[in-house]
Amino acid sequence: MKNFLSVHDAPSVGRLIERAAAIKADPFDHERTGHHKTLINLFFNPSLRTRLSTEKAGMTLGFQVITMDMAGGWKLEFEDGIVMNLDRAEHVREAAGVLSQYCDILAVRSFPELVDRDADYADRVINAFVKYATVPVVSLESAIRHPLQSLADCLTISEHRRSARPRVALTWAPHPRKLPQAVANSFAEWMVNWGEVDLVIANPEGFDLAPEFTAGAEVVHDQAAALRGAEFVYTKNWSSYTHYGATADLPGWIVDEDKMALTDNAYFMHCLPVRRNVIVSDGVLNSDRSLVLQQANNRTWAAAAVLEALAG
Amino acid sequence: MKNFLSVHDAPSVGRLIERAAAIKADPFDHERTGHHKTLINLFFNPSLRTRLSTEKAGMTLGFQVITMDMAGGWKLEFEDGIVMNLDRAEHVREAAGVLSQYCDILAVRSFPELVDRDADYADRVINAFVKYATVPVVSLESAIRHPLQSLADCLTISEHRRSARPRVALTWAPHPRKLPQAVANSFAEWMVNWGEVDLVIANPEGFDLAPEFTAGAEVVHDQAAALRGAEFVYTKNWSSYTHYGATADLPGWIVDEDKMALTDNAYFMHCLPVRRNVIVSDGVLNSDRSLVLQQANNRTWAAAAVLEALAG
Amino acid sequence: MKNFLSVHDAPSVGRLIERAAAIKADPFDHERTGHHKTLINLFFNPSLRTRLSTEKAGMTLGFQVITMDMAGGWKLEFEDGIVMNLDRAEHVREAAGVLSQYCDILAVRSFPELVDRDADYADRVINAFVKYATVPVVSLESAIRHPLQSLADCLTISEHRRSARPRVALTWAPHPRKLPQAVANSFAEWMVNWGEVDLVIANPEGFDLAPEFTAGAEVVHDQAAALRGAEFVYTKNWSSYTHYGATADLPGWIVDEDKMALTDNAYFMHCLPVRRNVIVSDGVLNSDRSLVLQQANNRTWAAAAVLEALAG
Repeated sequence: MKNFLSVHDAPSVGRLIERAAAIKADPFDHERTGHHKTLINLFFNPSLRTRLSTEKAGMTLGFQVITMDMAGGWKLEFEDGIVMNLDRAEHVREAAGVLSQYCDILAVRSFPELVDRDADYADRVINAFVKYATVPVVSLESAIRHPLQSLADCLTISEHRRSARPRVALTWAPHPRKLPQAVANSFAEWMVNWGEVDLVIANPEGFDLAPEFTAGAEVVHDQAAALRGAEFVYTKNWSSYTHYGATADLPGWIVDEDKMALTDNAYFMHCLPVRRNVIVSDGVLNSDRSLVLQQANNRTWAAAAVLEALAG
Repeated sequence: MKNFLSVHDAPSVGRLIERAAAIKADPFDHERTGHHKTLINLFFNPSLRTRLSTEKAGMTLGFQVITMDMAGGWKLEFEDGIVMNLDRAEHVREAAGVLSQYCDILAVRSFPELVDRDADYADRVINAFVKYATVPVVSLESAIRHPLQSLADCLTISEHRRSARPRVALTWAPHPRKLPQAVANSFAEWMVNWGEVDLVIANPEGFDLAPEFTAGAEVVHDQAAALRGAEFVYTKNWSSYTHYGATADLPGWIVDEDKMALTDNAYFMHCLPVRRNVIVSDGVLNSDRSLVLQQANNRTWAAAAVLEALAG
Repeated sequence: MKNFLSVHDAPSVGRLIERAAAIKADPFDHERTGHHKTLINLFFNPSLRTRLSTEKAGMTLGFQVITMDMAGGWKLEFEDGIVMNLDRAEHVREAAGVLSQYCDILAVRSFPELVDRDADYADRVINAFVKYATVPVVSLESAIRHPLQSLADCLTISEHRRSARPRVALTWAPHPRKLPQAVANSFAEWMVNWGEVDLVIANPEGFDLAPEFTAGAEVVHDQAAALRGAEFVYTKNWSSYTHYGATADLPGWIVDEDKMALTDNAYFMHCLPVRRNVIVSDGVLNSDRSLVLQQANNRTWAAAAVLEALAG
């Protein structure tokens, strides 16, 4: 594996899940993996789970781990050929080249602006680091994908499925702010490429995800139809891809006990942070069918499997 | 020891002081204590000594240490049962549950608002982490207590006392801003529970600390009376508990050479940061009777003793 | 070596370069250097390269490394004898004394204000830490010097020189903001004290550096004259020392392909961050004559050599 930006970088989703499970089963049996290697985590946006789980994974594998919050420093320029006489003090070409000399793996988080779809979907920040870095680049969530979350979700589903090929429902849910499509995009493409689940996606009209991520999944606009027979209910808000960045005030899409009753005694999943009684009711989130903490725990082992693959 | 929130968590103050002294005497003889364990330090408020001494203690004992500044990220919700459609993106229930999976010990700093006494004295932030975390929680200063400071102060007094049962005077001193009662509350309850000193507390009328912390100490409103015969003078400003958050412009309460002359050649103590020539005169702080640097040094060994007890 | 603030602290520039080269050649052969030692990096101003390279160097040598961003906390007081009743919560005397107890080496970054020349050139922040710290102090760039950058530059030149005594041209270049003289001051004094190059400095009239840094170098106001025959072109903007903090809009001072054609097939050097097509053209920076990434890489080994010398 050269970089870890999307499911397309993983030679085999199944094999990566197996490695995550193996490290989870015996975390400190892999301390030589990162020996004499350095991991740098670069954050252009805030993070709690991603930061802590990746730091934990790196340390557990024996890496020297350095985390850098870019919000406290100067802005980077991402355009080529321009006269840099405004507020951006350093070009990503230098930044990525320099950072590559201080580490063996470079992990980067960036968010979309949710204003200009073409700009966001060009995934400029992470792609510029890939272009100019000379070490493997890991996405800690980019403008349009969150692959470490998705790998952790695959591991969680693999640990809890009852059937060989469970029905997984990804459902849109309400949220007071406009959010990226990254988690949903990634979840869809990982489920489809993993090939061991049947994915149905339910969202309001106007909230269909970009087809490049959902090809191979069923997309419906009837939440109840999607939930029926589901073994896993993955819930997430996203702003509109078609009317880019638009939101909708649809409180009826909350996932509560009544909705869960439609399923095949499904597990509830969410990437966190989650807004209680907006996205999901307290009753569902507090129930023993909720896997949100297990998902968060698996972030560590997903990151560890990726670091192992890139350090190899 | 299950958590470390107050003196009431310590089975024996004396024993904890002994362990701190033992680790101080031979710091690197305890590198296995934290082996394959992770300490996460979570800061909702700024810190210099607490952060650095706890990081140092953790590393010295062999922990993987991760420090997270929450000010750069999203706000947590602490109320149960509410509809989270405003500015708080994550409930402490999820945050504490998630963090517990990334570490073996979770240390948290939070400050009071100094507006609503009942709210502050419910010590909501630290107690919510205790409620929802599944690992031991350490207070790095809460709204109403600063137990690591107090344990370091106990160690410092034990190292410098001349008499078996020294007289210790805790005196209020002036400050331009309104400050928490946390350090004074904690100092009082640790001194009383330690049981090896006689504590007298001097403060202006209207600045008596909450009785739950001072029971067993003498409280007077005459600073000179408190200082007479004292072997240790612990100085600290706090805002009013009774007229909650009120301050007083009483420059006469400064601790200077004249005040120290009333004592039994006492040592001067303060938790730092200290405002020179407001709280204490340059002459006292620069003298060889000042223990403020020793107190700060002992923060490391107090933290180490607590981490050891919780990791055991 | 007691501290590392300027070239004057280095017993021998040549020997320090040799140690940096030796550690670079075999980084992990020196893991005992920092064993059971702690390095604290304190930042009063933002940093990318300096922070990451110093952290990397410290970890590679086996130090426990703690980095603290002072911007998130309270302000320090640097004046002696004043009544601290305003916005500065802690005196550097306590801060430096306390920090000295948490580490074996204390590294500090601070910037000038570029308003009051006497104040800046007193280099108050770093000198206060030197005065009150009880451990060696390393400058991570002070108001007037950047010695770790200069040592890395010496190593880079030593690796790439063709002649025993190359001609090195330091040239001023345009920039939209007013910048410190620190990098240029340091570069000049290191080149002169190293004694193995001929240094010529080219800058516009009114931009001569302080003579204490440039004694021993040739100073000219004709960029082309300086570049002719140069084997290395070190480019940097600085604001005026004589008309303190003044800038000049002189786009003709950019270093581009035409300028480089005047040299003896020179290497291009810059400390980064660099503004493309303002300081230097894309063509020069992207060419194989650019050493900017090598300089940044050598920051790690310069820091390592200094940490080794101070830990000894």
